[in-house]
Amino acid sequence: MDSTFAQSLVISIPRWVDEILAGFAGPLESLEERMGLAIALAQNNVARGGGPFGAAVFLGARLVGVGVNRVLDSGFSIAHAEIVSLMAAQHTLAAERVKMGRFSLVTSTEPCCQCFGAIVWSGIEELVCGAITEDAEEIGFDEGPKPEGWAAILERRGITVVQRVRRDEARSVLADYRGRGGTIYGMRHPSVG
Amino acid sequence: MDSTFAQSLVISIPRWVDEILAGFAGPLESLEERMGLAIALAQNNVARGGGPFGAAVFLGARLVGVGVNRVLDSGFSIAHAEIVSLMAAQHTLAAERVKMGRFSLVTSTEPCCQCFGAIVWSGIEELVCGAITEDAEEIGFDEGPKPEGWAAILERRGITVVQRVRRDEARSVLADYRGRGGTIYGMRHPSVG
Repeated sequence: MDSTFAQSLVISIPRWVDEILAGFAGPLESLEERMGLAIALAQNNVARGGGPFGAAVFLGARLVGVGVNRVLDSGFSIAHAEIVSLMAAQHTLAAERVKMGRFSLVTSTEPCCQCFGAIVWSGIEELVCGAITEDAEEIGFDEGPKPEGWAAILERRGITVVQRVRRDEARSVLADYRGRGGTIYGMRHPSVG
Repeated sequence: MDSTFAQSLVISIPRWVDEILAGFAGPLESLEERMGLAIALAQNNVARGGGPFGAAVFLGARLVGVGVNRVLDSGFSIAHAEIVSLMAAQHTLAAERVKMGRFSLVTSTEPCCQCFGAIVWSGIEELVCGAITEDAEEIGFDEGPKPEGWAAILERRGITVVQRVRRDEARSVLADYRGRGGTIYGMRHPSVG
């Protein structure tokens, strides 16, 4: 084998997220305010040709990571908004030893099967969702085979699940994406057929 | 908000994987030979203080990505061997337009709930596993809430699942990890409590 397989795999969070964040005066205390940020990230990602999904992670009152869907830009099928924001938060927290406050993921749409599973290992204690699974499926996205009663399963593992926070606004980002003729990347990753 | 949230999130594949690969004369045609590589990666990751999991991705006869568990090194709970190898493969393939041959993931242990979900979107057409879920759970790892009949669910989505390939050898890597007193990172990510 003569190829080199040692390499760095990079998911980048685009610069424009900082402009969006500048429009929010922190701290974002209520779940509604936090969802407003996740929705704004989703909306702005659509405007820039990305998937209609945004997410943010909080530790107590503090924002520790944000994410938008980067599947089409990065070529990585893993790069959903939830995964990107969780990685960003873990990157922020890796240097700190003490965890102060509730570790919470706020996402503009309920997680797919992949993000459901990733949430289990992420260390979060709260999951806050906007649009529901059926809203994503209505525009043609496949949320995949999540286990029956997925929210209750997370609850049993100590993760509080709050659903339908500003659902209508979150849903309208999905409708906007469909209206623009956005790619519905589904089961098959675009780069591999 | 005065922090910068635009950033690069990096998962690195260590240099020593190239040394391991140098010991394998390609192409690895049979599933047994391919599993031998995944097991060797797992074994060598344990020897270097990592988790006891390795994986490799093939496109037809060609090896296009390898991965080892990087959770403890990277601080990212997502960095399971399957995810790392799939990202590596997608990175390799992103520059290419034509997909030639079967896209296959070979993993030393059956996927957890997170990797199960990620596999659904990864574009692979074949999943080859060594040790079974119960083998991982026997040493204390939690494989998480995979849906009932997860292998059949993948099959229905067009992904052939082959189980128990060189299971005993794959399992002995897990036993070796436990024997060395390796960290059993589970539901809660180590960096966040």
